[in-house]
Amino acid sequence: MQIESFLDVAHNFKVIFLDSYGVVKNHRGLIPGVSKVINQLRDAGKVIRILTNDASRSPQRQSERFAEQGLTGIHADEIVTSGMMAKLFLEQKVLSGQVAYLGTEAAAQYILDAALNPIPVSELDMENLDDITAMVFLDDEGFDWNRDINKTVNLMRKKNIPAILANSDKLYPVSKNNVSIATGGIAKLVESILGRKFIHFGKPDSQMFNYAFEQINQAGKYDRSDILMVGDTLHTDILGGNKFGVRTALVLSGNTKPDNAEVKINSSGVIPDYICNSIVD
Amino acid sequence: MQIESFLDVAHNFKVIFLDSYGVVKNHRGLIPGVSKVINQLRDAGKVIRILTNDASRSPQRQSERFAEQGLTGIHADEIVTSGMMAKLFLEQKVLSGQVAYLGTEAAAQYILDAALNPIPVSELDMENLDDITAMVFLDDEGFDWNRDINKTVNLMRKKNIPAILANSDKLYPVSKNNVSIATGGIAKLVESILGRKFIHFGKPDSQMFNYAFEQINQAGKYDRSDILMVGDTLHTDILGGNKFGVRTALVLSGNTKPDNAEVKINSSGVIPDYICNSIVD
Amino acid sequence: MQIESFLDVAHNFKVIFLDSYGVVKNHRGLIPGVSKVINQLRDAGKVIRILTNDASRSPQRQSERFAEQGLTGIHADEIVTSGMMAKLFLEQKVLSGQVAYLGTEAAAQYILDAALNPIPVSELDMENLDDITAMVFLDDEGFDWNRDINKTVNLMRKKNIPAILANSDKLYPVSKNNVSIATGGIAKLVESILGRKFIHFGKPDSQMFNYAFEQINQAGKYDRSDILMVGDTLHTDILGGNKFGVRTALVLSGNTKPDNAEVKINSSGVIPDYICNSIVD
Amino acid sequence: MQIESFLDVAHNFKVIFLDSYGVVKNHRGLIPGVSKVINQLRDAGKVIRILTNDASRSPQRQSERFAEQGLTGIHADEIVTSGMMAKLFLEQKVLSGQVAYLGTEAAAQYILDAALNPIPVSELDMENLDDITAMVFLDDEGFDWNRDINKTVNLMRKKNIPAILANSDKLYPVSKNNVSIATGGIAKLVESILGRKFIHFGKPDSQMFNYAFEQINQAGKYDRSDILMVGDTLHTDILGGNKFGVRTALVLSGNTKPDNAEVKINSSGVIPDYICNSIVD
Repeated sequence: MQIESFLDVAHNFKVIFLDSYGVVKNHRGLIPGVSKVINQLRDAGKVIRILTNDASRSPQRQSERFAEQGLTGIHADEIVTSGMMAKLFLEQKVLSGQVAYLGTEAAAQYILDAALNPIPVSELDMENLDDITAMVFLDDEGFDWNRDINKTVNLMRKKNIPAILANSDKLYPVSKNNVSIATGGIAKLVESILGRKFIHFGKPDSQMFNYAFEQINQAGKYDRSDILMVGDTLHTDILGGNKFGVRTALVLSGNTKPDNAEVKINSSGVIPDYICNSIVD
Repeated sequence: MQIESFLDVAHNFKVIFLDSYGVVKNHRGLIPGVSKVINQLRDAGKVIRILTNDASRSPQRQSERFAEQGLTGIHADEIVTSGMMAKLFLEQKVLSGQVAYLGTEAAAQYILDAALNPIPVSELDMENLDDITAMVFLDDEGFDWNRDINKTVNLMRKKNIPAILANSDKLYPVSKNNVSIATGGIAKLVESILGRKFIHFGKPDSQMFNYAFEQINQAGKYDRSDILMVGDTLHTDILGGNKFGVRTALVLSGNTKPDNAEVKINSSGVIPDYICNSIVD
Repeated sequence: MQIESFLDVAHNFKVIFLDSYGVVKNHRGLIPGVSKVINQLRDAGKVIRILTNDASRSPQRQSERFAEQGLTGIHADEIVTSGMMAKLFLEQKVLSGQVAYLGTEAAAQYILDAALNPIPVSELDMENLDDITAMVFLDDEGFDWNRDINKTVNLMRKKNIPAILANSDKLYPVSKNNVSIATGGIAKLVESILGRKFIHFGKPDSQMFNYAFEQINQAGKYDRSDILMVGDTLHTDILGGNKFGVRTALVLSGNTKPDNAEVKINSSGVIPDYICNSIVD
Repeated sequence: MQIESFLDVAHNFKVIFLDSYGVVKNHRGLIPGVSKVINQLRDAGKVIRILTNDASRSPQRQSERFAEQGLTGIHADEIVTSGMMAKLFLEQKVLSGQVAYLGTEAAAQYILDAALNPIPVSELDMENLDDITAMVFLDDEGFDWNRDINKTVNLMRKKNIPAILANSDKLYPVSKNNVSIATGGIAKLVESILGRKFIHFGKPDSQMFNYAFEQINQAGKYDRSDILMVGDTLHTDILGGNKFGVRTALVLSGNTKPDNAEVKINSSGVIPDYICNSIVD
């Protein structure tokens, strides 16, 4: 397993797609040195996009959060989230009514952006669900798991409505050795109890890659061969990049650890073009 | 689908095994008229046992709870619970250390009865898990779902210990139209995230039937043909009774509703010998 | 549920993406009248693409097969198959060695097209698997299920190699009332036995839509709003089209039947923009 | 991990329950030395029962097969099979009609023994299924997998009848390094395609243990503490014995290998009382 320097690899591309969690930041905050690397990429004329399976905050809020943590200059329109894909779907397919959601109030911005009326599951009146036209799983925080997951199960048993999963990740790291169940794990519990499958958004589906690709092609003219996707998770970032037809770099600063990266790559068959310790190495 | 009178059916048997939830009581409390029916069964010399997939309270506490609700005279030793089966397993196979659990303090009585030291997951020190020798899922109440299910996931990732599911029911009714996720649903979430299968106790496994059968045969001499199992759930009560080789009666006062009982029986192939509206009809 | 005339709907678009099985043909062959409709679309200047989750034959062979059945003039480069997506992946990620496959010899063309060396699982020497670098599920025909599915299980237990599913459909209709297990069903059996997940290709992933979209944009200039996706299956054709951001028409000539279309649409939340009996109605 | 001599362990018990495959025989035939050990057990007055998740042959045929292989003196009534449990269920619950099955003609003996009329799936007339009252999965051999598994899927889609799995093992070893998909794997494929769960028989359910226990107690008087269950598979033999409340010995001559036994025991929590290399060591 050959480890390469990230900047050496990035040098060969005009466009860099970066996953957020595990690549730019982790449970402790910004990965030290990231600001400098991003500036170096910009100075070298690289186009940058953040592609994240995160539906807990709008791109605007994620941009502000980066700045608060010390990474300035990431514009909201450089951030592509799985929440945006869910928003596009709602906009196109759910035309009216109230949309129930699990997540924080910040996450509900995606529903507002689709010109729909969000209502947290906690506030649902289970005796009067007539106006509810869809259910969206946005985040694992912002609600009482016991009360509100149970309310969601009952909502879905009573109403024949679309259920949308805006982030299908099942786990995320919260410290060096501990993980937390993510939105995808909660949705899976509900799916398994109801015996049905919801509509999932996010990497590895090509949709987010395609969105970013079309966006950058409005300004200039790039080819897929100009693009490098950088991520820490094989079955989302790297598989998605591989399927979309761009080069991929796996970083070992997040979900995939140096000591089992090679075994995971071989057994999954999801093969990155490059492997780097992190984007700051 | 022929509906028969419960007392007419019970008349043909010497021993009556009754499921608790959906048969003797429901979300509103005792099913009206149950006390009278149980007394009639006793007056007619029937031996009675309650067989319940309930690990949230000891038989002693369940007996007291029946009495508080107005059903007196159910002795603790007439109650066989899936929690008791888990307790027997712990007693035999987990010989020392602390046993972590999800559930109320009342449920932890099963761990104490196995001469082990219970510790609620909420009180686990995740930096010092050396003494933890098993994990038991006892009840869906008595803990913070978000914090403590996540702690359980991390416990099981760090320690190679047995995980025991003392009640594998996934759902239970909490009102006429609403259900609640039960212990089995929570365990399934953790199983799915960890990719492993825990040790499950309760009906339809023959173990509880066998326990009750041997217990009543210490006093008198009964044959399987003397026994009727009465339950509201096809895949636990009725399948378990069928496998154990006793006659079975499905009641329509709980999980199985009159309007879809016939379809469910045919499609599952789990066929009761008798169908009654309830034990009071 | 409003049923519209297909030609009336198609009139509003410049590009028509058609699923093959259930839309253009079915178990009896070409759907009567399809040739005429396709000619009408061409006369009206519509661009046509066939998007099919079929990896059993190359586009060239599928084009010839259409012609044999009476539908002439479908060029190979108007056909986009899930097999082509698998081929692109192999080309990019599996650089040498022999690629084992389940399927007919015709299906193995996709492996040859990736400049790799195909070997049917039936011919694998299980004592000498050194050269095998990937496994591809192409078709449910062309091999002995008992012998060769078992050989595949053993291959995957012995070798840490990518497994690729070129068509994830689980079932297909073989007569009015009978279905057959498709490649996706066979792969699921192997996945479940091995406890791992393979790399899946085909609709509803945006990849095939994107491939077709970029191909037609080399010649002219189309917008997503110019495109109509027509299909008979909600969770592949319609969901894929919805995610890619094009309008979708469900036809009731295949997997989705007139009598339960409305229930399926509501319960899945996968909502077509139009519903037509078939493309000839 | 302490390895003990089998005869030393067996010395402490009056009754020995032995799994068949992986304990008494393996893919090469009888494990060398088994005849001698069984004779030593008999000379020491031990009661012996074979408990096997094998529904491919009647106890009578299994007894004859042992004799052909060189192990004489195992009487048919010393063999308890999961097929017998399925037979008891059919006898009690399926009272008439034809019972479709997958398996060899030898396996169909269980259906005949239930006084029912077996018909192999290969001979089903799919246009006339009126008389079919149940479906039984008996063996992975004796039929054409492609044709007959597909016929089974279509049978179960057309008829609302019980489906019974007489052996839920998913895999069995066919040589030192190769496995074969067993009946349980085939049933799982059909279950997953139909989205329903069949009725499963065999260890670890207590039913077979109980059957054997009651049978030996007709002649003499034994306590559970007199019984040792010997098996090579943790989640069937050892878990079943543990649940039934008898002592258990794991042998390393079959499914569980010496080099990963300890890890498997710890991670499953299925803990044998004794570990022996084999019954001849």
